Formats: sequence, structure tokens, C-alpha cells
Amino acid sequence: MTDTLIKVDLDTSPYDNEMIHNRWHPDIPMACWVEPGDDFKIETFDWTGGQIKNDDDAADVRDVDLSQVHFLSGPIGVKGAEPGDLLVVDILDIGAFDHSLWGFNGFFSKQNGGGFLTEHYPLAQKSIWDFEGMFTKSRHIPGVRYAGLIHPGLIGCLPDQKMLDTWNSREKALFDTDPTRVPTLATLPDGGPSAHMGRLKGEARDKAAAEGARTVPPREHGGNCDIKDLSRGSKVYFPVYVDGAGLSMGDLHFSQGDGEITFCGAIEMAGWLHIKVSLIKDGMAKYGIKNPIFRPSPMAPKYDDFLIFEGISVDEGGKQHYLDVHIAYRQACLNAIEYLKKFGYSGAQAYSILGTAPVQGHISGVVDVPNACATLWLPTDIFEFDLMPGVDGPTKYLDGSVDMPLAPDL
Amino acid sequence: MTDTLIKVDLDTSPYDNEMIHNRWHPDIPMACWVEPGDDFKIETFDWTGGQIKNDDDAADVRDVDLSQVHFLSGPIGVKGAEPGDLLVVDILDIGAFDHSLWGFNGFFSKQNGGGFLTEHYPLAQKSIWDFEGMFTKSRHIPGVRYAGLIHPGLIGCLPDQKMLDTWNSREKALFDTDPTRVPTLATLPDGGPSAHMGRLKGEARDKAAAEGARTVPPREHGGNCDIKDLSRGSKVYFPVYVDGAGLSMGDLHFSQGDGEITFCGAIEMAGWLHIKVSLIKDGMAKYGIKNPIFRPSPMAPKYDDFLIFEGISVDEGGKQHYLDVHIAYRQACLNAIEYLKKFGYSGAQAYSILGTAPVQGHISGVVDVPNACATLWLPTDIFEFDLMPGVDGPTKYLDGSVDMPLAPDL
Amino acid sequence: MTDTLIKVDLDTSPYDNEMIHNRWHPDIPMACWVEPGDDFKIETFDWTGGQIKNDDDAADVRDVDLSQVHFLSGPIGVKGAEPGDLLVVDILDIGAFDHSLWGFNGFFSKQNGGGFLTEHYPLAQKSIWDFEGMFTKSRHIPGVRYAGLIHPGLIGCLPDQKMLDTWNSREKALFDTDPTRVPTLATLPDGGPSAHMGRLKGEARDKAAAEGARTVPPREHGGNCDIKDLSRGSKVYFPVYVDGAGLSMGDLHFSQGDGEITFCGAIEMAGWLHIKVSLIKDGMAKYGIKNPIFRPSPMAPKYDDFLIFEGISVDEGGKQHYLDVHIAYRQACLNAIEYLKKFGYSGAQAYSILGTAPVQGHISGVVDVPNACATLWLPTDIFEFDLMPGVDGPTKYLDGSVDMPLAPDL
Amino acid sequence: MTDTLIKVDLDTSPYDNEMIHNRWHPDIPMACWVEPGDDFKIETFDWTGGQIKNDDDAADVRDVDLSQVHFLSGPIGVKGAEPGDLLVVDILDIGAFDHSLWGFNGFFSKQNGGGFLTEHYPLAQKSIWDFEGMFTKSRHIPGVRYAGLIHPGLIGCLPDQKMLDTWNSREKALFDTDPTRVPTLATLPDGGPSAHMGRLKGEARDKAAAEGARTVPPREHGGNCDIKDLSRGSKVYFPVYVDGAGLSMGDLHFSQGDGEITFCGAIEMAGWLHIKVSLIKDGMAKYGIKNPIFRPSPMAPKYDDFLIFEGISVDEGGKQHYLDVHIAYRQACLNAIEYLKKFGYSGAQAYSILGTAPVQGHISGVVDVPNACATLWLPTDIFEFDLMPGVDGPTKYLDGSVDMPLAPDL
Repeated sequence: MTDTLIKVDLDTSPYDNEMIHNRWHPDIPMACWVEPGDDFKIETFDWTGGQIKNDDDAADVRDVDLSQVHFLSGPIGVKGAEPGDLLVVDILDIGAFDHSLWGFNGFFSKQNGGGFLTEHYPLAQKSIWDFEGMFTKSRHIPGVRYAGLIHPGLIGCLPDQKMLDTWNSREKALFDTDPTRVPTLATLPDGGPSAHMGRLKGEARDKAAAEGARTVPPREHGGNCDIKDLSRGSKVYFPVYVDGAGLSMGDLHFSQGDGEITFCGAIEMAGWLHIKVSLIKDGMAKYGIKNPIFRPSPMAPKYDDFLIFEGISVDEGGKQHYLDVHIAYRQACLNAIEYLKKFGYSGAQAYSILGTAPVQGHISGVVDVPNACATLWLPTDIFEFDLMPGVDGPTKYLDGSVDMPLAPDL
Repeated sequence: MTDTLIKVDLDTSPYDNEMIHNRWHPDIPMACWVEPGDDFKIETFDWTGGQIKNDDDAADVRDVDLSQVHFLSGPIGVKGAEPGDLLVVDILDIGAFDHSLWGFNGFFSKQNGGGFLTEHYPLAQKSIWDFEGMFTKSRHIPGVRYAGLIHPGLIGCLPDQKMLDTWNSREKALFDTDPTRVPTLATLPDGGPSAHMGRLKGEARDKAAAEGARTVPPREHGGNCDIKDLSRGSKVYFPVYVDGAGLSMGDLHFSQGDGEITFCGAIEMAGWLHIKVSLIKDGMAKYGIKNPIFRPSPMAPKYDDFLIFEGISVDEGGKQHYLDVHIAYRQACLNAIEYLKKFGYSGAQAYSILGTAPVQGHISGVVDVPNACATLWLPTDIFEFDLMPGVDGPTKYLDGSVDMPLAPDL
Repeated sequence: MTDTLIKVDLDTSPYDNEMIHNRWHPDIPMACWVEPGDDFKIETFDWTGGQIKNDDDAADVRDVDLSQVHFLSGPIGVKGAEPGDLLVVDILDIGAFDHSLWGFNGFFSKQNGGGFLTEHYPLAQKSIWDFEGMFTKSRHIPGVRYAGLIHPGLIGCLPDQKMLDTWNSREKALFDTDPTRVPTLATLPDGGPSAHMGRLKGEARDKAAAEGARTVPPREHGGNCDIKDLSRGSKVYFPVYVDGAGLSMGDLHFSQGDGEITFCGAIEMAGWLHIKVSLIKDGMAKYGIKNPIFRPSPMAPKYDDFLIFEGISVDEGGKQHYLDVHIAYRQACLNAIEYLKKFGYSGAQAYSILGTAPVQGHISGVVDVPNACATLWLPTDIFEFDLMPGVDGPTKYLDGSVDMPLAPDL
Repeated sequence: MTDTLIKVDLDTSPYDNEMIHNRWHPDIPMACWVEPGDDFKIETFDWTGGQIKNDDDAADVRDVDLSQVHFLSGPIGVKGAEPGDLLVVDILDIGAFDHSLWGFNGFFSKQNGGGFLTEHYPLAQKSIWDFEGMFTKSRHIPGVRYAGLIHPGLIGCLPDQKMLDTWNSREKALFDTDPTRVPTLATLPDGGPSAHMGRLKGEARDKAAAEGARTVPPREHGGNCDIKDLSRGSKVYFPVYVDGAGLSMGDLHFSQGDGEITFCGAIEMAGWLHIKVSLIKDGMAKYGIKNPIFRPSPMAPKYDDFLIFEGISVDEGGKQHYLDVHIAYRQACLNAIEYLKKFGYSGAQAYSILGTAPVQGHISGVVDVPNACATLWLPTDIFEFDLMPGVDGPTKYLDGSVDMPLAPDL
């Protein structure tokens, strides 16, 4: 029986659990300590800490309090880890709880974070996904079923003070270029009551909360990378910045597409990880490592027949941008959505498929001025019908009777 | 014996061949006509028309005349094709010529086009790649060998006048924002002697040359997409804009990484394609198609063990950018290069590997403000040595005695 | 929470559990009933019912009582199922128990069942395999680690009386050709106390036990097929012979090679399955089905780099056999074992690797008289060292200090 | 330009070409010599030397003279190769001739060699397969199209006299157990005019012909293994028995299923190989090698969605056999044929698909007395229609208007 070092109770608030935190700061005390070579289990809340329910009403997505995210389990101290080391993490397994075999996906309101296509889908919507063993399907999006490529959206080690200061200053600089923008350009430390600093209390807590970095973006330490292939069976090498490393993780995803374009997010779930840790002493210098590197799992869904959509960096208004992969990928996604609509999906359903299925987003061409070219790889085997083009045109597989719940802005 | 409809003679100038062109314009006459259902072969020059030689001097890369590129074979008229149709192209096979079993890769001087990492590698360099059956290796970059994922970097149909005007106006608008920039923001029609308008002559030629779009960027019709997976065995659906479709192709690549980051470019070669064409009448409306879509080949190198590098949208100077995938991918590439240098490669060699090997570039996270996250997937099986990190640190596999030729700016 | 319809207590005897049986007979009462469309969990003993222990002594393997095997969970009645239907089983997931994260592999003594290479390894030996999440490794066989391709070695529906009679008569006919052979040619009904007929009692039990077929061989209904690819995520179509179908299963394997050559067997374990059932009415006639057919899982370990060994149907003594694939595969296995010994493995360790790792056994040529050709595909990625041949010869990776426990015949 | 060391003229008889032979004997002189490290091309006849024509009449298959097969190109001498070495052969590429883009498949008459299912299909039939680039399809078998996994059915080194004597004596011993059997149990040396001993002439030729082993079966040196995965891109390690090794090859296949069950055979073709040779001195002892071993290509068709059929070792008459994989595989094949007939194929067409498509034949269980279990893996992506079972039963895709030519016995 493998030890579970951090447990969560989904019926209680994450704020009541001292082994949880939702900001990055070197002062957060280790929640527990392990030895190199140990393997153990860690439980996690879903990234919102239970704000989204398994129902047919998107109001909870609309009203989500994003100042709370992401609830992370940790930090885990690894004995002997020192700044400059690489912390090697074998992700041995990941799973949902037997009593919580579902996940959610959705789009935030443009007023509250939005998403990759927020100009096109500005209102809160959600879909619920049920897990049937290693597969998932949604009552809100018929016609698709996937095997999960389960992974932590967020995992990484504590920054030291210098790294933290770097993060805060560069993000503030960006934020200040357009401080009233909606959605915001960057999420800055707020120091408010939403900050959960683990078992840190009182003044120490307040100080750390005031400068603790939000967990939203990926950074040098990894963090919220939302890389679908950093899944069960992968081996990850993390930079270490503080004594003990301080590894934290959360934001489990049952399945996700490259880009996590729906922002809320993948198929989000609570659950557990089984991991093993070890060290490469002085590994950052030895291998010239700045950001984490990893070897993907030998085990992943074999969805390798694709229909591929191209996009270029000309925006929806016809304006030419210079080698902008972000815009090119958006066009590829929009092209795929238009295609899927011909088979009967609503745009929102198609958007959700791109956010939740193991679609690939490739940077296909990035030097042919002025157009970047991005490709969206849609796996055809996840559909219960034939998705390929034919001389007779598409068959409308869906009758439109089922759609995703939508909650208008108040 | 399959008919070869367009032949090229590598010992003569592409300008002497009326079945070649290097600009996009609806007035370019069809080089030949085929029926839907036909299969046939098409020969092509390399994209520069033979400017780069199989030697150890990068001066030809430095001095390349980019106003000439890309030399395309076509346009091929398909009987019955009308605007709004989809032209279905089965790429049945692609190969190099028996008398030309090599290709080139290089970086242009920053003064003449540059490349993805031109700030880091501003001078012209090149590597020559020999083909041994389905494999390639380079005398300038030891320790790697790949099976080719051969593909046309450039393939697409003629634009109509309206589409052409759209291209020209939007690219001019971008160019005008910084007309003296080096490298240029966009390559505009020039009407000069470099324009090869097929068999169009005299005034008609001059008029078309004056407004004929350069072939550099990918656009709605596909064109210079440089998608490595659009390879032999794939099936591509192209939008048709003019009667007869007018399919042209060229810029063959023996192998390339996602992004074609070296710009010059992949492993560039002359060669031939064997293709088959058919039509989906009114397919653009039936399937909501704006850009080409395709189904990849059932046949591709099985390099599926990877070491994956992350990059985020903080640039080399530490400046924070907003969800900029271009910058994030650049960081992932730079991270991979630093890693490879630990095994003895020069930076230029490592850069070339990323440009020529079947590396993948994924848009991993694109919503977690303010950082985009991109990943560079380096296939480990192409290396003759073990690339994985270990507790003992890297073994220097290469002694630095071999490097890529470099030609300083004059 | 998914319902568990059949539970097992590993601390008690399978004979005390009325939802278990170890013989095939149409009179065995259904242990439970489900509706088409239901999904549910089923727990199982290991195939020996706990006779083999997690220790370093092979005496239990030597002394195993094979008259007891296999302990199956079921039969499960499916409402509406009738003879001639196909019972569709989606294997949604399979796992070990949290309190029993290990499995065993071994060779029986030639005096008690033997194995594929019993002439070469005639004595009882065993290895214990620990599960670390989705991976397994053994303290008795260093240098290898696999991701599990978990599957039920045994699954199928109850025979009707006619099918049962066919089985018994044809196997008896074979047995009678050499009734004293060791190992035996066939395992016949014995009617003794070892027969567990589920909840059948008294005379009815004795009658059924007397003619109930042993579970050892695979037969028309599937049964003990030991097909490694019939794993979690696969979809199986079983012939139905009796009203309610009567689906039973057991003999879970964490990992196995094609052929299950060690006989005892794969990496054997207790555990649970999560399955879903549905029906294709009259499916046997519709599709001409005699034996089960299945579609493998989209999820399986990506061990696809192999070193492949050939074998032909000339036996160890040099005698020529006519297109005998059994002998050809034995030679391929022996060839692989000789190869592995050069790296330091004992023959027994190498034999165990072939029995437990996801090796493939292909029938490569079966018409070129007089030699069949079989190939053994050894996945190289499961080894912690480089297995490929080189000019310098093999490096002895193992020092021979660790071997598998052996229990001499008494 | 790669040198072609052995050329063939398909318009002339193989007997006129001194670089061809069709028997194995150490006295056959080397056709040419190469150095370790050389790469070069070798052309080959089809295995029958042109006896089968691209037409719609199976008389040529019925009347084939099998005493002539297989016409091999070689032997190629490798300088420095000595008995006990391993000859390493990189198969860099394989192709058909531009002027001969087709192949044949067929069943021999039971009176003349038969095939795996000769009791069920005792008469000569054939199908012709056209090559379209890397794909093939047949006018005699609609509804399927494959990418080729091109390979030499036959490749290996010359035996020494001792090895040759062993072959001849053991095969004669088998033959003598039933010398009048039809089809024959073994093909023995005949010394007749059909024997082509390369450039050996006169008495020396007659002596070698009298004892030269037929090329039909695979043996210790490899030879006629008909292993579909020994394809372009693979690396093979051959035992060396004579000075110079004496590598010969032929019997090219565009595509084949495991077992090559149709015997005539795969999709048989003339063509060329591009190979590279090197040596591992004393490699046989270093690695314990008796039969060739190989590493498969990184490039193979990605047909990895399968419908899998089981077979057990109970024969068509209901008789039980002991762990007989040959019979089990025959049952799996017959089961697949019955299934395919439900979609409209004739039995012969289905049989041909199993012989020519990249089907896999696995030895799934070989220890569960008395039944072996073999599985036939049918790739579903080669079919133009949906092959999976469904509640509505199969749709008859083919109307039976097209079938394979049959030539009754005379």
C-alpha cells in the first residue's frame, strides 16, 4: 500500500487544509518531507476548489472566483535538494476519486477571464464529462468519446526570492501597459484573503501573500504549463531553486487539447497522483536547464488518424500580422469549428471538443514572412461518425437538440 | 509507367522552362491539363533553382538571390474544376532524383532574410545532407541520421484576382508600418526580372509580374505552408479559386522540423512528386473550408520517443510578452540548443538539427495569461548516442572538430 | 461510484465465495444479473486463489494444486441475452488492489504442468513483480521495467450442454492417445473436491462437477485465451450459448508476452475489472462468428522498437518438422534467451522476461515447406541498457548476483 | 548516383544472367565483391522469373514451374567476411521498376504446391495488384488499398558444406516419411536443368546442382523467411558461413501478411534494393547467434486499428490437436474469411486479402493444454468501408460482380 502524504476532503474548503496553497512564495513551509527514491501519493482538489458543480447550469462558471485558483497540494520537501539541482519526478499514475468520477469544461465570460476564442464565445458555458473507466463522454456534447490522457495541468517547485521578484516585476511591467484591459493582461499578487499560503500564518502569511505570485501562468519552474503530454508515465526534470525543492501540484486534467483553448480549461477534475522523486545534483548547470524538460509516457491514447486544419496569421478582420503563431492557431481552431458545425455541432460544442480532446496544435511554419502557419490536428477516431470529407458532402449527425448550458452575464 | 507532365533539367535555368513560375497570379497560363482521376508525375527544381551547391562553402547561402524564390512547377489545370470546389490531391509518392541524392540546409544572413534565430545566428551557414535510400545524414553534423518525411514545402492553387488583391493590400499595409526593417516585414510584388510568370510573355507578363504575389508566405490557398506532415501518402483538400484550379508545387523537403526554423530551410532538394487529383464539387461551402485541410499519411517515421523542452513568452532580455507563442517557441528552441551543446554540438549544428529533423513544435498552453507555453519535441532515436539526462551528467559525444561552414557578411 | 457486483476477500478461500467458480458448466447459476448497457465492477482472485506468496521461495510454485485453477468471478447474467447473440464487452478499466500491488511469474515443475520450455527449465522457479503505478519491476530480475498492458487472461460465456459435450469428447480423445504423458495432453473433468461450481450444491453440484470442463484451454467461447492485447480499453464480441450469456472472468495479468510461455504464467495478480455489456441480437449468424473477435484498446504501451529473433521448425535435436509453428516459436524464444545471457542474465531470468514483457510472437512464414518461421519481438525500451548488437560485442550488464528462486522437485 | 552491381532484364530469361542463381551451394562463385561500408543497388527478378503475367487468366499460376524458384541476385562477396562473423545489412530502400509497377498474388493448385488453405481453395487463382506510388490496389479485389511494407521475401548468405549437408539430410529424412504426399513435405535437391548455379559451369555446376539446396524454406541463414517486417529501413544481422559471406536476395514483396498464407505468395514483384553492408567480426559467438536477428524499420504503415480473430487448435473436422499453432492460425484465418464474406467478398478474395495486406498473425497462447490460441489481426484502415460489427449487422459492400480469375486443374 502506497502512502498518501497529502489528503483532501472534497466536502470541505481547501482553505481549511494546511497542505494546500494557491500562490508561489519561497516562505511557504513544506507540507511534508520525503527522501530521494521515495514514491507516494498526493491528492488534489480540482483547480477551483469545488466551485463548479456536476449540473446543467453554467452560472457557477460565470460566477467563478478566479482569485482563488489554483489550489495546489504541497509544497513537498525533498531531503538533500539544493538550488541548482534537477528534481526528477516520475509520474507513476494519476486517477480520479472513485466518489468523483466526472470533470468539467467551460468558457469563462469575457468579463471574467474569457478564453482563447472569447471574442467569439464571450459568455459562460459549461459541459460535464463522465468518466467510464479510462474513457470519458459528455451528456452535453454527443458523438465523441475519448480515452483520457490524464495529467497535472500544474506542477513545479517553489521559486526563490530572486526568481519571484523577477516574475513580479516583469508581469507588472506588462500589466501597466494597459491596466484596465478586460480580460486582464496579467494576474498580479493581491495579498487579499483569497491567497492561501499553506500553513503560513499571521504576519508572515500576509507578507508572503502580498508578494506571492499567482499560479496562472507557466514560468521557468514549469507551473501551470497545461501540457497534455506531461501525463501518467512521464518523467519530468524540474529546476530546483530552494533547499528541499518544494514541489507542488494540482489542476488535474482527465483530457485536454494542445493550448487548453477553452481556459476553463481541460476536463478539470479532483484526484490523486502517485509519484516518485529523485535528484540530479547540480543538474541545471550540467545540462544547461532553464525550464523543465521531460520524457513523455510510453502509454498514451493511440489516436493517430487526424484531420488537420491550417491557419495563418491573418486575423478575423483580414488584418495581416507578422509571424504571429497565436493568431494563426486561432484561425486553425476557427476553421475546425466551422467544419464541425457542418456535422450538426453548435459552435460552443465544437470549441469544447477542441479544448478537451487530445487534439494537437503544431507550429508548422514560423519563418515565411509575414505569415506564421499553425495546424490543428483533430483525431478522427474520437468521433462516433465518419468525419472525413467526401463527394456527397457532410451528413448531419447531430440534430441540435442537445447543447451546452449557457449563463448570460448578469 | 506513369506519365511525367512537367520535367526539369537541373543543368539549365528555371527561367528557360515555361512550365515553371515563381509568382502567384491568375493570368499565368496552365502548363498542362489533366482529368479528375488522373495520376501523374511532376518534377521540380529546388526552391532556389540551383543557387546552392553541394560543397563546403556557405558563400552561396550568403549571396542567395531571394527575389527568385520559389520556383514552382505548374500550374496544372484540372478539367471541370470551378471556383468553390475542393481539389483533392493524393500525394502518392515523392522522391529525389537518382542523379541528385543530396539536399541543403542553412541560415541566411540577417542582412538577407535571416531566420527564426537570426539574432543569435546572424551569419550565413550551411550544411549538406546526403541521402542513403530513405535516410539522410550530414558530413557537417555528425551523430544524427533520420528517415525522411519527404514533403512539398509549397503546394496550392492559383488565386483569383480578388484573392490576389486582398493578399497584396494586407501585406502592403503591414510592410508600410516599418518599410526599412531588416529583415523585411513582408515580401511585396516587385515586377522585376526575377519574376517568372510561366509562359506568359510581353505586356501580359509585365502586368502580371507587377502584381503577382510573392510565394514566400502561406496563405488561404495553402502555398508555402512548410508543413512537414503534408508528406507522401497524405491526402489534401485545396480550395479552388479559378477555372481549372491551377495547382502548382515545389520546394521539396527531404526532412524538416515543425516551424522550419532555419528558414533555408528544411533539407531542401530537387525531385519529383507522383500525385492524383479529383474534385469535390462545391466543397468549400459544403464543408465550410477557407484554408486547405488534409489527412496525413499512413506512412511516417516512427520516431516517437522524445525529450521535450518548454518555452514561455518571456524573451531573451527578460521582457514579458502577452501569450506570444512565437516567442515561447523561440525559447523552447534556445533551451534545446543549450542542452545539445552540452553533448558537444556547436550552437549552429544544434540549430540545424532543430530545423531539419522531424521535431515537433506544439502550442501547449495559450490561455494562461500572460505566458504562452510552447514545447519543442526532440526525437531521441535520431541520435547515435543516449540523449537522456542522467545523474552523471552528459558525455561529450562530439569533439568539435567538425562544424558547419560559415560565410561572413561582406 | 460504480457498483461492484462481485467482491473477493483475498484473506479467505475462494471456495467460500459463491460468486466464484472454476469449471465450465451450463448449470452453474448466475452469480448476478445486469441489463444491457450497464457498467459495473467485478473483483477477482488471482488464478490460483492465493496459492503463490510474495516471498523468495519457489516451493509454492512447485507445490501448486493445479486442480483448483482458474478461479473465475461469475457467471454474470445479462438480461435478454439468448443463444446466437453476441455479447459485447467493453473493458473500461482493470486494476490491482491497493492492498495487493504485486504479481508473480514462474515455471511449474515438469512433473506438474511444465511450460513452453519445460525440457530446458524443468524445475519450479518464480519471480515476484512489484507494481509502481502503471509500471512493474522485479527484485529477481534486474534491468527491466515495463508499463503494464493489463488484461484478463480468461474471459468468456458459459457453454451450453452440446458445446460442453463437444469439448469433453474431443479432449478425451486426445488424452487417450497417451494417457500417462507428463505433462498431460489435456486436463479432463475430474468431479473431485477441487471443482468449485459456484452456488450449485448437493447432487446438482456433483453432476455438474463430474462433467464440468476444466478452464485451462481456450475454446470456442474464448475462455483462457491469454491474449495480452485483450486489455483495458478493448471491445470484445463473445458468442452466447445460454440464456443470460453467463459471462465469467479472472486470471488477471499485469503484463504478458505473446504465448504466455512461462505458463505460470504472465505477471499474475488479483484485482478488479470495470466493464460494460451490451448485445448484438443474432450476431453470430449475422457476422459468421464462431470464436470471439475483438478490437484492441486505443491505449497500450508504446514499446515499438524491437530486436527480432527468428526461429524455424527444426527442433533442438536437429530434427526437421513440417511447418510446425510451435517448434519454430520455441526456437525463436531459445535464440532470444541465448542472446540475453550474453548480457549477464541467467537463462531462467531471460525466459521470465519473454513470459512477462510485452513481447510479440509472430507467425511469420507458414507455407515454405518444410520450415515454418516464427519471430519473437523483444521490445528494447524495457531494458535499462542498450540491447543492440555492436562491433565491440555485448557489455555484461548484470553480474549474476541476483537470480530467481528455484525449488527442486521433492 | 548509387552503383547498381547486379542488373536484370525482365525481357530475358534469368538463366541467361550469370549473377542470378536459384539453389544454395557454397561453390557458387561470387557475382561481385564489395567492401564493408559500401552501399549499392541490386536488381532482382520476381521469384518465378517472369512466369506470371499481368492479365486476367490464372492459367500461368496453375502451370507455374516451381522447380525454377526462387531466382536470387548474388552471391555478393564482402571482403574480409569470415565464418563466424555477422554480416550487418542496412536495407536503405526497396522499389519496383518504373516500367513494371504491378505485382501478383495467387493460390497454387493443390496439385502443385497448394497453400495454407489448400484444402479449402484447391484450385489456381490469381489477383493482380497495381502500384500507385506507395499504395497498391487490385482490379480483382475491390474495397481495399494498402501502403506497401516492401521487403525481400528471401535474403541470406551462402551455407558452407557442412551446413548444406545438414539441411539436405534432415529434409530428406522428413520427405522419406511420406514421399508421395501431395503437396510434398519437402523440396529436395534435384540437379536437373532447372537449377541455376550462377556462373558455375560444366561438371562443377552439375555437382553443385545435384546437392544444392532448394530455396523454398527458411533456414539457419535466414533465406526464404517471408517476414513482412524485414522491410526497407530495417537492419539485419546475418550469420556468415563462408569466406566473403555470399549474400543473395530476391523474392521482393510489395506487401504481405504474417504467414504469407497464400504461398504465391505476397504481392510478388520484380524490383531493386539499395543496401549497405558491414561486419561484426566473430559476432556469432559474441552474441550467441544461430539465426539472423534484425531491428525493424522506423518507417512502416501506421495501420494500427485492428479487428482481431481468434483461432484454436481444433481442426475443421472438430479434432483436437495438442498446442498446434499452425492449426490455430488456420482457424483464425478461416474465421476472418467467414466474417469478410458477410460484406460481400468471395472466399478467395478474403483469402487474398489475408495473404497480401499487412495483417498480423500472433502466437497468443501456447501453453494452455491442449489448445494453442492464435490471433489474426486485420487492419481496418485498409478497407474503404466500416468493418466493425454493429447492432444492425453487416452492410453488403460488394455485389459479387468482380472476382479473382480461376484456372481449373487440367
